[in-house]
Amino acid sequence: MSHSLPHVVIIGGGFGGLYAARELRRAPVRVTVIDHHNHHLFQPLLYEVATAALSPGEIAEPIRHILRRQRNTCVRLAEVIGIDVTARQVKLSNHEEVPYDYLIVATGVTHSYFGHNEWAEVAPGLKTLEDAIEIRRRFLLAFEKAEWEPDPKRRRALLTFVIIGGGPTGVELAGTMSEVARRMLVKDFKHIDAGSIRVILLEGLPRVLPAYPENLSESAKKQLEKLGVEVRVNTRVTGIEPGAVLIGQERIETENIFWAAGVAASPLGATLGVPLDRNGRVEVKVDLSIENHPEVFVIGDLAAVTDAEGKKVPGVAPAAIQMGCHAAKNIQADLKGLPRKPFIYKDKGKLATIGRAAAVADLGRFQFSGLFAWLAWLIVHIYFLIGFDNRLLVLFQWAWAYLGLNRSTRLITYYETQYEPSPKPQKII
Amino acid sequence: MSHSLPHVVIIGGGFGGLYAARELRRAPVRVTVIDHHNHHLFQPLLYEVATAALSPGEIAEPIRHILRRQRNTCVRLAEVIGIDVTARQVKLSNHEEVPYDYLIVATGVTHSYFGHNEWAEVAPGLKTLEDAIEIRRRFLLAFEKAEWEPDPKRRRALLTFVIIGGGPTGVELAGTMSEVARRMLVKDFKHIDAGSIRVILLEGLPRVLPAYPENLSESAKKQLEKLGVEVRVNTRVTGIEPGAVLIGQERIETENIFWAAGVAASPLGATLGVPLDRNGRVEVKVDLSIENHPEVFVIGDLAAVTDAEGKKVPGVAPAAIQMGCHAAKNIQADLKGLPRKPFIYKDKGKLATIGRAAAVADLGRFQFSGLFAWLAWLIVHIYFLIGFDNRLLVLFQWAWAYLGLNRSTRLITYYETQYEPSPKPQKII
Repeated sequence: MSHSLPHVVIIGGGFGGLYAARELRRAPVRVTVIDHHNHHLFQPLLYEVATAALSPGEIAEPIRHILRRQRNTCVRLAEVIGIDVTARQVKLSNHEEVPYDYLIVATGVTHSYFGHNEWAEVAPGLKTLEDAIEIRRRFLLAFEKAEWEPDPKRRRALLTFVIIGGGPTGVELAGTMSEVARRMLVKDFKHIDAGSIRVILLEGLPRVLPAYPENLSESAKKQLEKLGVEVRVNTRVTGIEPGAVLIGQERIETENIFWAAGVAASPLGATLGVPLDRNGRVEVKVDLSIENHPEVFVIGDLAAVTDAEGKKVPGVAPAAIQMGCHAAKNIQADLKGLPRKPFIYKDKGKLATIGRAAAVADLGRFQFSGLFAWLAWLIVHIYFLIGFDNRLLVLFQWAWAYLGLNRSTRLITYYETQYEPSPKPQKII
Repeated sequence: MSHSLPHVVIIGGGFGGLYAARELRRAPVRVTVIDHHNHHLFQPLLYEVATAALSPGEIAEPIRHILRRQRNTCVRLAEVIGIDVTARQVKLSNHEEVPYDYLIVATGVTHSYFGHNEWAEVAPGLKTLEDAIEIRRRFLLAFEKAEWEPDPKRRRALLTFVIIGGGPTGVELAGTMSEVARRMLVKDFKHIDAGSIRVILLEGLPRVLPAYPENLSESAKKQLEKLGVEVRVNTRVTGIEPGAVLIGQERIETENIFWAAGVAASPLGATLGVPLDRNGRVEVKVDLSIENHPEVFVIGDLAAVTDAEGKKVPGVAPAAIQMGCHAAKNIQADLKGLPRKPFIYKDKGKLATIGRAAAVADLGRFQFSGLFAWLAWLIVHIYFLIGFDNRLLVLFQWAWAYLGLNRSTRLITYYETQYEPSPKPQKII
């Protein structure tokens, strides 16, 4: 790998960053992927870790292992704290600076508590592996505590699980939590019966999965209710405090509150010095680069993109993958002296899972739900796991979990009990 | 489960406590197993987690799940802070008191730094799942840091791994660490070559595995050296500080120090008010109960036992299992008005693994080493995993890891980077 080749720095090892790196594997460039985690996370299955159905290791893979055979690529575990587009340098938290010729920023989104950051401690969200482990810890500890709780009021609060936000994450979490709690956990807890468990899903808009067609929202609601979830729409949360969710005058007593209501762009976007949209996402041009800096691309959930056909690009994994490949292709076009191409998003449809054997699918012309949608969801996700060494293993584990045999994921480890909620560590290395 | 039945409280869900509970499954008693972890840990494979070959979930199983079908038994996640043998009560950290008719104490051992508790932070030991995760974190982070370290001196220190203590744990850890680092990790790190990795095993006595026959110690040493471990015997560590191990005037620069040199009894033994041996273990009578309190049994590594045949009982899993069953049988004898039986330890031999396909076996008359010993070790451990729901899964994972396919265990999660070394959390619930 010659040091005279152009240096492409990719920040973020999620779907966008990883596919951008792969697309550059034979290009005459040096690639450095920087992430503050050592692993790529298969986010679509994160709710399975949060509900103790899969182990953290089953949906994550070290980034450097995924890219180990790519000769022109290095991986660096480090935290990026800023970008100097004038000097063309990325600033690391250890005060080092990494120069680049091309930069691809793919740091995604984090939770947004709509100005109520104090809610974060009481109501964790689900974006990272650590979030999932924390939700799992709270979910399992609630049962451990309820098992021996003599006060009936507190016992009820311990067995009440409130999920705020009826988008795909909230729906997945509520459906699976209800299913795992009622079908599996109760068998291990001798003083808890399934009837005393409440799982409540709160959505501010008039229906769950608001981005889906109305009939699918209706179907999702019915499937959730079949799994024992109380679905409440048109319900705006006005307050969250330890032990309760407030909805105007109403008060739901609960020891378990999970947040799936909103996301905000990664703060790194703001250091680029270009316009951001209302959610803090970076507005990019149709070639995915930013204004005045054709060498800087922003992709994935962090980018606010209207594609060449005028479509708003949604914040989903397939869009991030397409953008990653596209940005990498435009870099290669530059190097060959060819013109860049505008980005066109290919919408393959939407799938949301609800529980084991329950889902909704919106493939544009075709819309369906139930077992068939769930099988479609399963096939798509197995397909996307391609590139993961352990996809066979995950499949095996999944089948195992589905048969109700895998309980080893229900660990409460001491690190987790020592957890002090701070949204992000300041320094990793 | 009638409340008029005698209440047997078992503290500790390790091998001893778990087998005691199982032995009581049909006895006319109520059983409560109390542990401050929610999981039973299959300790013989702990080094596999520390070296990123197995996931934490693969060697641990929720105690309440293992005992879920045992109708007379409840499981409680709680920390015991003391025992009042006069009032026949166990004191929990939440100020509750749990009364008992019979008590079985099986809380095992923890690390001993021979009076140098300040070494604990620099040189973690390997007893719990959290210990293993912490060692794995340090092991993997050392490679991440070395990959990008420009200073050759610091780079050398980052790639030097020192294991202190040449007993079974130290031998396992050193052998596997060397093997995983040289055969697997180096493939993922492009700036690190196998030749720059040093794994050093330090033992104060004249040979490794001092509890084994001399020829097996010699064989273990040779097998370790074949795996690239530098074995140094007659080497007493005089100091440990961040970045270095001191041996008299000699100084080994290393960023990675692991402790496998000594254990001390769980402090709970001291609250029983009976004589302890030099290592803090509780001296028990030949029926495994303590002096003046026939209703209190101490078993497993916490007990200092000379059996009815005058044999000192070693601190190994088979001994803990035998003691657990024996204490439970003596309780049943009491209830039937029959005399108690003295404990006789059945020594089935010793096995220590060194790496993949390397081990030593001492079955008394038969002693062997190498692949054959390793296969014996494998068979014995699969046998012991019986009772674990996931033993097939572990076998599968193990095969997977053995074929070099499983890297998903190499996770560095953020909880772990936030780790603040304190030997034990004060309160779990």
